Amino acid sequence: MAEHYLDNSATTRVSESAAKKAYDIMTSEYANPSSLHSFGFCAAKELECAREKVAKTLGADSSEIIFTSGGTEANNLAILGTVEALKRRGNKIITTATEHSSVYDTMLKLQKDGFDVIFIKPDESGNINPLDVINAADEKTILVSIMLTNNETGANYPVKEIFTQIKRRFPQAILHTDAVQAFGKCEIKVAKLSCDLLTVSGHKIHAPKGVGALYVKKGVRLIPRTFGGSQEKKLRTGTESTPLICAFGVACEEIDTEKNIQTAKELNTYLRNKLSTMEGIRVTSPEDASPFVLNFSVLGIRSETMLHHLASKGVYVSSGSACSKGAKSHVLSSMGLSDDIIDSAIRVSFSKFNTLSDCDALIDALTGGMNTLAKR
Amino acid sequence: MAEHYLDNSATTRVSESAAKKAYDIMTSEYANPSSLHSFGFCAAKELECAREKVAKTLGADSSEIIFTSGGTEANNLAILGTVEALKRRGNKIITTATEHSSVYDTMLKLQKDGFDVIFIKPDESGNINPLDVINAADEKTILVSIMLTNNETGANYPVKEIFTQIKRRFPQAILHTDAVQAFGKCEIKVAKLSCDLLTVSGHKIHAPKGVGALYVKKGVRLIPRTFGGSQEKKLRTGTESTPLICAFGVACEEIDTEKNIQTAKELNTYLRNKLSTMEGIRVTSPEDASPFVLNFSVLGIRSETMLHHLASKGVYVSSGSACSKGAKSHVLSSMGLSDDIIDSAIRVSFSKFNTLSDCDALIDALTGGMNTLAKR
Repeated sequence: MAEHYLDNSATTRVSESAAKKAYDIMTSEYANPSSLHSFGFCAAKELECAREKVAKTLGADSSEIIFTSGGTEANNLAILGTVEALKRRGNKIITTATEHSSVYDTMLKLQKDGFDVIFIKPDESGNINPLDVINAADEKTILVSIMLTNNETGANYPVKEIFTQIKRRFPQAILHTDAVQAFGKCEIKVAKLSCDLLTVSGHKIHAPKGVGALYVKKGVRLIPRTFGGSQEKKLRTGTESTPLICAFGVACEEIDTEKNIQTAKELNTYLRNKLSTMEGIRVTSPEDASPFVLNFSVLGIRSETMLHHLASKGVYVSSGSACSKGAKSHVLSSMGLSDDIIDSAIRVSFSKFNTLSDCDALIDALTGGMNTLAKR
Repeated sequence: MAEHYLDNSATTRVSESAAKKAYDIMTSEYANPSSLHSFGFCAAKELECAREKVAKTLGADSSEIIFTSGGTEANNLAILGTVEALKRRGNKIITTATEHSSVYDTMLKLQKDGFDVIFIKPDESGNINPLDVINAADEKTILVSIMLTNNETGANYPVKEIFTQIKRRFPQAILHTDAVQAFGKCEIKVAKLSCDLLTVSGHKIHAPKGVGALYVKKGVRLIPRTFGGSQEKKLRTGTESTPLICAFGVACEEIDTEKNIQTAKELNTYLRNKLSTMEGIRVTSPEDASPFVLNFSVLGIRSETMLHHLASKGVYVSSGSACSKGAKSHVLSSMGLSDDIIDSAIRVSFSKFNTLSDCDALIDALTGGMNTLAKR
């Protein structure tokens, strides 16, 4: 059976060259980059080379890139590291109600700890009104964390507008964006975004799972979350995962944003057109969302039922974020959508490896499912 | 030039089969183990299979294994997670003055935070007197963290004796051991050690850098350090690095402790005999130390000078722990050794890939260095 992987927002297939790089580092350039001998120095050079590649894709300096074990760790370090550094200066934090759980749950923890956390809600289309965030900021605001692209709906949030305005009025506030779902999928330059901190993850861009990075603007102070060792400027200690980091570097080098967008736009438009002719389907992703994500509901059929049916035909999609593992989506809920829509949501997400035939296979399997699966 | 890698306590070469496993997971079984479709289920099965392999090597149940990004993260989670859970119950923590920096620096942080941290010192031979630790414990003790094998000298600490006695007298104290340098190098069974928490790392046993595990005994409560997602029983969230975890599983399966010990003993004895005939060399590792580590000083020649000379001959060793990156060793200092000895220390560490020819190459290069390098 041919397989059609349309769950690229959950994770991606590692590119051949990135996987080969990891393999080579494991078996040849395997020294500890902290070792003082020449063999260790070669490993350290590989590490710095990867750092430069990641930095380049973000328009950052390589000294501003801190490698982590992934997006979740980077988001946690950004938020908890900032709050620990600035808690004496203020108590207010602004975020959205639709962040990835690694931001959202961390914010809930801070709220429990007594911080004044403002969760900005999206409108029913899934978009965030920039004024809602800007007007919430004040002198007591120590941190603003807003994602660039929502992982469930693909909605693009107006981070640049929000950050530029807040930076001008309240320069003391640290501005963080979770760019995991936007990385490689739109032009990202840290200076243009006016951000202090930015999170990216390897496994969403055809690098392996287990590596991510936090951009930390020169001069921005974070309190580390781990102790012992002096790796990553002491912000994230422990022996660096050179195989994964170097594979991440290769995957960054392979990013062709323009071409990626072109592919995704073609597939997204094709799929939207097909879906619009089918009765009982309601598209949730905003019109102007990232073309890489398309969230729609097959009314009357539970997400999981449809998802398993599609999988039986070799078509892999998601019912929401992979991280929520079947729990009700806090993203769709906060958009004020009805349970009907939420309980039957399907997320399709594209990568550069997808083609129109994946969309055709999805439509076929979907049609079959709608004809045969029991309605609730 | 032939290369002789004798720095295996810093890191090891990944075995072919472990590296191949990582490669296969990256390019074939690449789904997110949290994805609900059948492809995700296959990834989850791979993950659980690896967990069983790691658990088996420790005599643990697979439900007691929490994967982390490495030993440093596992040690941090063990210590800070325990202290956060028990800080209302007591204030006292016992450890040694010679732990790996990921334990030692974390303890210094806790001391700064107001905890009563007792650092037990070794004797001049590098050994820890079990009574020193046992007698320090009391009702207020919430955590004892003692490593199994010291990473710089190879000294084996009497963890079993210490833990058995403390568990009997003060069952409320949580007992943690950093087993990173002992794993695969001596028989480790968690039940026999009476430990509640035990740290292992992949890259010291021919798995890739970037993966480790914490054994958490059933019923032991830790407060997590990262938030968002439900992976690893919410104790360590973020998408699991399936490539590294599955490679770790393979490397565990390949462990042949008895054979490893036999190889290391042969090499260690051979090297000790050779060194004993050379003037100006002083062996620091205790006689009954782990055979995998041999620490000695070439009196009058600075560690780094000798290390670079050896590297120029293709022989790679360390001047201490790779993590300390040239800083004066807190381990050797706490043994009360003279600056002479500390400043000229060389650590040789073996793996199953080493042979007698590596020892011969070391002796040749060492002799050459002693004849040509300037004494201080």
